[in-house]
Amino acid sequence: MPADSTPTATVLNRLTATEIVAAVRSGRTTCEAVTRACLERIAERDALVQAWQYLNPDQAIAEAKERDRSTRGGPLIGVPFSVKDIIDTSDMPTEYGSPIYSGHRPRADASCVALSRKAGGVLLGKAVTTEFANVHPSRTRNPHDLSRTPGGSSSGSAAAVADHMVALSIGSQTSGSTVRPASYCGVFGYRPTFGDLRCVGIKEAAGSFDTLGLLARSVEDIALYRDVLLGIEPVPVAADVPAPRVGFCRTHLWSLLESSTQQLFENAARKLADAGAKVSNVELPKNFEGIPDAHRLISGFEFSRNFAWEIEHHWEKISTTLRDGRIHDGLTCSFSSYLESRALAERCRQLITPILENYDVLLTACATGEAPVGFSTTGNTKLALIWTTIHVPAISVPAFTGPNGMPIGAYIVGKRNRDRELFAFARWIHRKLA
Amino acid sequence: MPADSTPTATVLNRLTATEIVAAVRSGRTTCEAVTRACLERIAERDALVQAWQYLNPDQAIAEAKERDRSTRGGPLIGVPFSVKDIIDTSDMPTEYGSPIYSGHRPRADASCVALSRKAGGVLLGKAVTTEFANVHPSRTRNPHDLSRTPGGSSSGSAAAVADHMVALSIGSQTSGSTVRPASYCGVFGYRPTFGDLRCVGIKEAAGSFDTLGLLARSVEDIALYRDVLLGIEPVPVAADVPAPRVGFCRTHLWSLLESSTQQLFENAARKLADAGAKVSNVELPKNFEGIPDAHRLISGFEFSRNFAWEIEHHWEKISTTLRDGRIHDGLTCSFSSYLESRALAERCRQLITPILENYDVLLTACATGEAPVGFSTTGNTKLALIWTTIHVPAISVPAFTGPNGMPIGAYIVGKRNRDRELFAFARWIHRKLA
Repeated sequence: MPADSTPTATVLNRLTATEIVAAVRSGRTTCEAVTRACLERIAERDALVQAWQYLNPDQAIAEAKERDRSTRGGPLIGVPFSVKDIIDTSDMPTEYGSPIYSGHRPRADASCVALSRKAGGVLLGKAVTTEFANVHPSRTRNPHDLSRTPGGSSSGSAAAVADHMVALSIGSQTSGSTVRPASYCGVFGYRPTFGDLRCVGIKEAAGSFDTLGLLARSVEDIALYRDVLLGIEPVPVAADVPAPRVGFCRTHLWSLLESSTQQLFENAARKLADAGAKVSNVELPKNFEGIPDAHRLISGFEFSRNFAWEIEHHWEKISTTLRDGRIHDGLTCSFSSYLESRALAERCRQLITPILENYDVLLTACATGEAPVGFSTTGNTKLALIWTTIHVPAISVPAFTGPNGMPIGAYIVGKRNRDRELFAFARWIHRKLA
Repeated sequence: MPADSTPTATVLNRLTATEIVAAVRSGRTTCEAVTRACLERIAERDALVQAWQYLNPDQAIAEAKERDRSTRGGPLIGVPFSVKDIIDTSDMPTEYGSPIYSGHRPRADASCVALSRKAGGVLLGKAVTTEFANVHPSRTRNPHDLSRTPGGSSSGSAAAVADHMVALSIGSQTSGSTVRPASYCGVFGYRPTFGDLRCVGIKEAAGSFDTLGLLARSVEDIALYRDVLLGIEPVPVAADVPAPRVGFCRTHLWSLLESSTQQLFENAARKLADAGAKVSNVELPKNFEGIPDAHRLISGFEFSRNFAWEIEHHWEKISTTLRDGRIHDGLTCSFSSYLESRALAERCRQLITPILENYDVLLTACATGEAPVGFSTTGNTKLALIWTTIHVPAISVPAFTGPNGMPIGAYIVGKRNRDRELFAFARWIHRKLA
């Protein structure tokens, strides 16, 4: 938005978080106006997209007005956001995508909700999640093509950000639950270095892998939101980074990609090299081939203990997808297999470190291609979970258009504890590919 | 208890969990009789000890009767247990030791509660915790001397097990919150390998360190309860282990110990050597001296984000101990200091592995001596947090009697993921020292 323009309602809901903060701070708009623009967009579109599990327009407008009245400001001042409905809110229902928790109202806001609100963000409502952030599909549609899945499990979060209903959304990731929906919906999806962002008040799936996931429409917004959720003063994304050393990593699962998507990645690697990046191929050690099985056993083992109460008291309200999938995997996994799987994951975390020293980032895929047609699946999770398992930060950036006009993301993988560098290089790459 | 005796009410509350299970299974007693014996003990003693935050005798007896009626059995059949009041229960209040949560009733049982009940355990009630499992003292007294602290933060858990009110209790540990109270109260206190036991439904203090902690009156009970909480078939503690290779580790903090306690440890090392153990001194690498500061910064940083909602909305209901301690530490710690502290902790985790290969277990201290007189502090946490930070399993075994007749534990430290070996060697050591 040009600095001298007066934003109109039509435009306001399309602004990024960074743009909203600038517009509110300079007095060019109000928190209330931005919130109303988003609510109008939701009213127009959500009967089709079905991204919202809970929405209370009056409450959202009241919160926005309160932000306008307050002199407190904050780095997210006036930014409408949503959170996946596995995240606790003290003033909205939180149902974890399951009838077991129908009408549940937690006592407190999750840490991430409290930090967002404290920073001036306006919580519009709760985003649809798949059942307990697992793979049983939700009702949400892909806003780019309503006959396709938005991916999962952060389905409502990705769809709402993509459809300009909200600037930011918090999802979560145990396998590829933030970054695959981001790829399918054409937005930025970030999985942080494991352990950085607090998960208090979020229904845990598998503690060995769970992180928050952030969805936004720019790298700058992701960086801003990460700092807010770290509870620190925001630091802008570094400008003018040099052309990165890019490791193009096809992994042992590359044959899962549609051939047209493989071609898009080959072209992208060439395009980045033409733009000055030093692109070379990376082979992962053989041990990495064991990660999908190890991830399945670890997450199954942990999930089936985490949900001991639900399994014991509400078995009939759990989907057969979940019962016969993750819970069955977990209840039939021996403790020694669980420990062996954990050891493999740890070994891979050690092995990746010296490899990553040769690159600034890796370029890979977190989805096999365009969002699948239909709603029987949320898509293949295997590509993303390799990186989830080894605890490195990664970001899916909108990069390609598939044969059916659907967005596809490039997955940019960084180094543990160096998320800020990842943002700078991901922005460089996004600019060259977009 | 001799196999042919008929247990009396006086005896039943003194049985270990393993003995209760055997007595119930053989028909020598009932779940109800054991529960009533424990409730009688509590009625007699809790006005003095103050270990219980919530107790509903009728509900406990109903649960015990239900166990007696059911044919389901389970590895904890009929064992009365309590859980620290930072652990969620669907049918009892859960107040996290804070007026902010007065009257709070969670929707679901924590994973560890559901697993305990599923295994046949009888939940008697909630154990007193310090405020949010931090250091602000609770009202609980040490059952061995009511003028002394039981330690904290799992104060009610340790006191109730020590006073024969209950056979088992679940606490938690971020610094030394299970093992120090165990040492002060003369019971076994176990902190598991980090990440093994699920923490769903437990109010997180600092995710980088938090684990459950188990309190019991025998090593066998600890081993049994661990397997129940892992959701696996229990495996008895290995009998007839060889005399262990013991590394006597005084750490750089040994001068914190009372001199009489130092002497007890020197004597113990000799006694173990006389009994056949190969005892030698272990020096920790210099980096370990940074652990107390690193732990303070990491736990402060995480705590102050985890409690963003409470800090924002209920500041005046937080104790000044907590505000001026952990929260202040966290809010004044920079993100780079936090990351540096995390890096130090990780480095120490790597450094300890080759050292531990030379020993079966380490012998050290988790408390500076006897439980302090008075209630202005829960005791010094520094000795225990070294081992908490490096994620190894450890168990405090009742080993000594101090100059005032109070119990003091020997802290036996094991290798990550080898908790079962730790149990076997800890039992060997306990038998030689007790």
